[in-house]
Amino acid sequence: MANGPLDVVGIGNAIVDVLSHADDDFLVGQGIVKGAMTLIDAAQADRIYDAMGPGVEISGGSAANTIVGVASFGGRGAYIGKVRADKLGQVFAHDLKAVGVDFDTPMAIDGPSTARCLINVTPDAQRSMTTHLGACIGLGPEDVDAATIAAAKVTYLEGYLWDPPGAKEAFRKAMRIAHEAERKVSLSLSDAFCVDRHRAEFLELTNEHVNILFANESEILSLYQVERLDDALQMVADHCEIAALTRSEKGSIVVANGEVHVIDAEPVERVIDTTGAGDLYAAGFLYGYTCGLSLPECGRLASRAAGEIISHFGARPERDLAALAEEKPN
Amino acid sequence: MANGPLDVVGIGNAIVDVLSHADDDFLVGQGIVKGAMTLIDAAQADRIYDAMGPGVEISGGSAANTIVGVASFGGRGAYIGKVRADKLGQVFAHDLKAVGVDFDTPMAIDGPSTARCLINVTPDAQRSMTTHLGACIGLGPEDVDAATIAAAKVTYLEGYLWDPPGAKEAFRKAMRIAHEAERKVSLSLSDAFCVDRHRAEFLELTNEHVNILFANESEILSLYQVERLDDALQMVADHCEIAALTRSEKGSIVVANGEVHVIDAEPVERVIDTTGAGDLYAAGFLYGYTCGLSLPECGRLASRAAGEIISHFGARPERDLAALAEEKPN
Repeated sequence: MANGPLDVVGIGNAIVDVLSHADDDFLVGQGIVKGAMTLIDAAQADRIYDAMGPGVEISGGSAANTIVGVASFGGRGAYIGKVRADKLGQVFAHDLKAVGVDFDTPMAIDGPSTARCLINVTPDAQRSMTTHLGACIGLGPEDVDAATIAAAKVTYLEGYLWDPPGAKEAFRKAMRIAHEAERKVSLSLSDAFCVDRHRAEFLELTNEHVNILFANESEILSLYQVERLDDALQMVADHCEIAALTRSEKGSIVVANGEVHVIDAEPVERVIDTTGAGDLYAAGFLYGYTCGLSLPECGRLASRAAGEIISHFGARPERDLAALAEEKPN
Repeated sequence: MANGPLDVVGIGNAIVDVLSHADDDFLVGQGIVKGAMTLIDAAQADRIYDAMGPGVEISGGSAANTIVGVASFGGRGAYIGKVRADKLGQVFAHDLKAVGVDFDTPMAIDGPSTARCLINVTPDAQRSMTTHLGACIGLGPEDVDAATIAAAKVTYLEGYLWDPPGAKEAFRKAMRIAHEAERKVSLSLSDAFCVDRHRAEFLELTNEHVNILFANESEILSLYQVERLDDALQMVADHCEIAALTRSEKGSIVVANGEVHVIDAEPVERVIDTTGAGDLYAAGFLYGYTCGLSLPECGRLASRAAGEIISHFGARPERDLAALAEEKPN
């Protein structure tokens, strides 16, 4: 349980990323869908891991990356997610606490091991992810601490939570508590294939429950089953209080109450690895939002955080984002 | 004088383009500002022309390019602009009439020769323009035929008209007649340096007289003297009935009455020469507008026309735009 007020509490699949470089032939040979997140079982995970080159382990998980980003900006964050009390689970917990994120979800003491996401980064900086959910399937509504949710200005949920069966109940419980406490609920659509798996429920969520929506171009097109970004833009403007649509190097569009802001991408000398770009965009935006910044200021902070994360390997910031935000106006 | 209704009448500097390939060193050596349009006198024009490699002569002029584009889409267009009755002037008139554009402005029989724009295209497809206005300085209000303006759904004016002294009176006269006839007035800001030369008047025009504004990113930033596109976007939304902001490969943004549409650039296999991209964008947009299409449809037609023009040398379409528009949905 959290002590005192929080800026953002994130709920997500608690995952350790295993990152390695690979070429396109490797993806084809392993049947990995390029640029997407695919769910795999333990046997597939072992097979792909055995075939991968030397990797680095970095704590990940979409919402966890976002909360770490919020903390790095100087915000107060908490995280709810399920690991097992194994080596990777301890690493995951350590990495959150080391940046000051509250993380008190009880670890599983038996059952599947801590989730791993095997991420193969191709020379074009695209990441292709295969995830074995492992201990994440143990997350349930009992893990959602009402006081923590009620203490946070924003409860941030990743769409990936719709994959493990118990997590969506945790998700709905958190949403209910947040609304009762007159807090904001934010959702990231996570992945176009994930949207495809859960479209009806995601439409219900975005239309009725979500205050702040994050989606990239393919996700929002998938949600509304339209072909043009502008069509999706007109639709989301009617449905969400605030929506931030991210478009990689084309920047992002922030829509809210009839306002539309077009935000440039942060110029990046060289894109190394796009893992976490969306997660850190959300971090910058939500940090700005909880500080009371204007929407375009939130969008610019978001772009800056995304720019930091794609400049290096992995989805956790290598630089102090608070210092980055101070550095120069953008 | 026009017979029957017109879609768009354009008023502009009637210019023949002389296009040649050049490298950046040539621009530096000749003191040419890259990517801009610079006014030069007859002596400078001769000096630069002598130094240029083999060129091709193609009828040009910003508003004339736009009207030719409208005609190529199947719209009914007219053009007002001043050439001298010399060889280039005859070529200019021929090229307009050959695509069905009404062009009845009396040619000058003496004085400076028909205007030339020396366009050096660098390997990055950027065009750097130096213009000797020549006969254009003879354009005045007496050349504006009231019946033609009143017959056209839209009167389209190029910002470059602010450079020769008499043309702005022609411009203001046309604007007045158009408004009295309850027609629409459209302005292209033409060039960031041109905006810089005439900012106060352009602000007055856009705030009080222009219904449909076209500007690229550097032009709109220059107009409002702001650094971020989003700031300019919020300002223009308050000032113009319709504004289309073009952003090269980032596409365009169409703003009108609280609507904001984000339009993708047309994918182009290889960009050969960006001369006329803005002119043809305006052609597609205005053709769509005079046909009663929705704003995003106008924007998409505009992008398609711009995509055609940058795929080859010169600012006049090489393909029938009506056929291009039919080809496939975008």
